[in-house]
Amino acid sequence: MSNLIAETNFVNLFSEDHPFKFENGSALNSVTVAYQTFGKLNSEKSNVIMINHALTGNAHITGIITEKEIKNCRHEKHLANYNEMYEGKEGWWSPLIGPGKSIDTDKYFVICSNVLGSCYGTSGPTSINPNTGKKYNLKFPEVTVRDMINVQKGLIDYLGIKKIKLAIGGSLGGMQVLEWAIMYPNIIESIMPIGASVGHSAWAIGLNEASRNAIKNDPAWKNGNYIEQPELGFSLARKIAMLSYRSYESFMIKFGREKSNGTGLFDVENYLNYQGEKITKRFDANAYLYLSEAMDSHDVGIGRGGIEKALNSISCKTECVGISSDLLYPAEEQKEIVSRIPNATYSEINSIHGHDAFLIEFDQLDKIIRNFLV
Amino acid sequence: MSNLIAETNFVNLFSEDHPFKFENGSALNSVTVAYQTFGKLNSEKSNVIMINHALTGNAHITGIITEKEIKNCRHEKHLANYNEMYEGKEGWWSPLIGPGKSIDTDKYFVICSNVLGSCYGTSGPTSINPNTGKKYNLKFPEVTVRDMINVQKGLIDYLGIKKIKLAIGGSLGGMQVLEWAIMYPNIIESIMPIGASVGHSAWAIGLNEASRNAIKNDPAWKNGNYIEQPELGFSLARKIAMLSYRSYESFMIKFGREKSNGTGLFDVENYLNYQGEKITKRFDANAYLYLSEAMDSHDVGIGRGGIEKALNSISCKTECVGISSDLLYPAEEQKEIVSRIPNATYSEINSIHGHDAFLIEFDQLDKIIRNFLV
Repeated sequence: MSNLIAETNFVNLFSEDHPFKFENGSALNSVTVAYQTFGKLNSEKSNVIMINHALTGNAHITGIITEKEIKNCRHEKHLANYNEMYEGKEGWWSPLIGPGKSIDTDKYFVICSNVLGSCYGTSGPTSINPNTGKKYNLKFPEVTVRDMINVQKGLIDYLGIKKIKLAIGGSLGGMQVLEWAIMYPNIIESIMPIGASVGHSAWAIGLNEASRNAIKNDPAWKNGNYIEQPELGFSLARKIAMLSYRSYESFMIKFGREKSNGTGLFDVENYLNYQGEKITKRFDANAYLYLSEAMDSHDVGIGRGGIEKALNSISCKTECVGISSDLLYPAEEQKEIVSRIPNATYSEINSIHGHDAFLIEFDQLDKIIRNFLV
Repeated sequence: MSNLIAETNFVNLFSEDHPFKFENGSALNSVTVAYQTFGKLNSEKSNVIMINHALTGNAHITGIITEKEIKNCRHEKHLANYNEMYEGKEGWWSPLIGPGKSIDTDKYFVICSNVLGSCYGTSGPTSINPNTGKKYNLKFPEVTVRDMINVQKGLIDYLGIKKIKLAIGGSLGGMQVLEWAIMYPNIIESIMPIGASVGHSAWAIGLNEASRNAIKNDPAWKNGNYIEQPELGFSLARKIAMLSYRSYESFMIKFGREKSNGTGLFDVENYLNYQGEKITKRFDANAYLYLSEAMDSHDVGIGRGGIEKALNSISCKTECVGISSDLLYPAEEQKEIVSRIPNATYSEINSIHGHDAFLIEFDQLDKIIRNFLV
C-alpha cells in the first residue's frame, strides 16, 4: 500500500494571443490540462520523469484517491461521471512509482497528464465549448499524437521544466514517448517506449475500426450527441479491444471453458461483459473515438521523410520494451523499431498476458527501469 | 478452370415415424439436406470422401455454377437471397477436388452437404416452419456439431453408403471430422481435421461472443424476426471474425498503411467494409448466430469422460493439420489434439495467412492430402 496521495491539478494553458494550434489547423484559446505530480522538482529542474498513459488511461499513476480528490475532480464539469473514483483506489502504475520504487519519487519529480482528447480532465470532446455553452462532442478538433505532445510541452513550459530525464509509457503512451524524442530532442534525455507503435499496423487499424463501428452502429450514440452513453456499442468496442490486449494463452489459463457463476454463460463472456459495462462508467464514447482515430492516423514518418528517417533522428538514450505475447504490437515490431534508432537497446517482458502485460508484469518492468535509470 | 459442373441436390430426410432428434431433445419430422457429389460411387460403395465445410461455407466444394444450378437453387424458397451465385463461379476447394487432383474425382465419390442450421439449403433458421408457414428464425431448435453429424449420417444412409474412406475439413469442418470419427468409428476409415478445435478456447468464445453482440445490438435484427438483414451488425460481426481468420503479417503485407482508393480510409478498412457487406448478401444473420453458438458449445469430451478420453477413443488413421500463423486455433492446439489420438500424425501448413490458410494454401494442402491418401 502506497502512502502517496493522488491529487489532480487542473491548469488552463494557452490564450487568445497564443492559442493552441492543432495539427489539422484548428486552434483553441484555452486548453485545460489535468495532471498529477509526485516527488519534488529539484532546484535545477533536472529530475523530471514524464509518464505517458494509454488509450483509456489517466493522470492517476500512483498514490491513493482521497475524499478530497474525489470532490476536487467532481467539481470539474467536463469530467462528467466518467471518473470511476473511490477512496483508497491506487494509481495504475503504483507498483512502479513511489518512494524507493523503480521510478523513485524520493529522487524524481514524476509527472503524468491526461492526454488531449481524453475525458479525465484535459480538454476533449466532453469539454464545454465556450462559444455554445454545450459539450463539444464531435465538434472538438481532430486530435493527433503530436497534438498531445504539444499540449504536454505547454504544461512543462508552465511548470518551468527545461529537461526531461526520461519519458516512459506503454501503448499509446509509447507512441507519445517516441514523438517526444523526435519533436523535442533538446528536452528529452532518454525514452522508454513499451509495446509501442510508430504507425499502426493494418491489423491494429482493423481492430480499431471494428471498435469504432461498434460505437457508431449504436443508435444511442446519436451521431455523437448522446446524453446517456451508447452503452451497448461502447461495451462491444471495449470487448473487441480486450481480445487484442490479452492473449489466447492468458484467456485459456484464466477462463478455460468454465461456466462457474450460474449465468449459463462462459466465464470469458461474463468477464468481457463486465469489462464492457465498466468502460461505459469510466470513459466517454466520443473521447474513445477521438483517441482511437489519433492512434490509427499516427505515423512518425509523416513530414519527416518516412518512418526510418524519423526513427534514425532519435539521438537520446532509448530502451524499447517488447512483450513476448503481444498480438497488437508484436515483439517483432518493437525489434524493428529498435533497429532503426541509433542509441537504442531492447528488453522483452516475458509474459502470457499479451499487450496488457505493461499493466501487469510489474516485477519485470521494475528490473528493466532500474537497470535503465542507473 | 475445372470442367466439373456443380449441382446441388436437395433431399428430405427423416419422417414422422423416424424424426430427427436434436441433442437438446427437440425433434423434426423432416430435415432438408442440400448436398453436392462428384465422381462415381463404386459398386462396393467404398470410395467415399466426405468434405465438411466451415462456418459460412456450403456444399459447393468444386465445379462451376451453371444457369441451371442457379435456377435449381433459387427454386428452393429457404435459400432466400443469400446464395451469392453467378455463372462460372468455382467451388471453395476447387483446386483440391477434381479429376487428377489430390482429392481425385476419377477415383473417389466426393460428398459435401450444407450443415444443419446453415442457410444454403439444409434446414436451419431460414427454413419454413411447416406448423406456421413462416420462417423459423430463432424458433429453430438449438444446433450442435453432433446434430450436424447425425444429419450427415442420415444422408449417407439415404445414399446407401456404409464406409467413408476419409472425412476432411477445416475449422468447423475439422470439428465435424473429429466428431465423425468418435460417433461413427465403424464408418470412418480415416480423418484429416485442419485448424480444428475439440472445444473452443476462451479467446475463440470471446471473439464469437463479440460477433454475436454485434448482430444482436443492431435494432434491425429485431430479436431475429427481421425481413431485411441487420446489415450494420452482421457486417461488424464478420469484420471481427476476419481479424481472427487472418494475421498481423498477412494484413501488413496485403494492406500496410496504404490509403489507395481515394475514400480517405485505410485499405484495410475498405477491405473489411467489403467483407462485411458481402456476408450480408450471401449468408443469414440468424444462421450465423446458430452456427457460432454450436461452435462455442462444442466439446468432444461431453458425455465421454472428458476431451482426453474422447480423443483417445479415435482409432482410425488420423492426420491433424495445423497452420503456423493460426491465431484462432493455434498450431499448438493442433499438436495437443494429435498427441491425444493414438493413430495420428501431424502436418503443418507454413503460411502467413492465419486460420484462412486452409482456403488459400492449396499447394501445401495438395501435398499433405496426396501423401495421406497413398
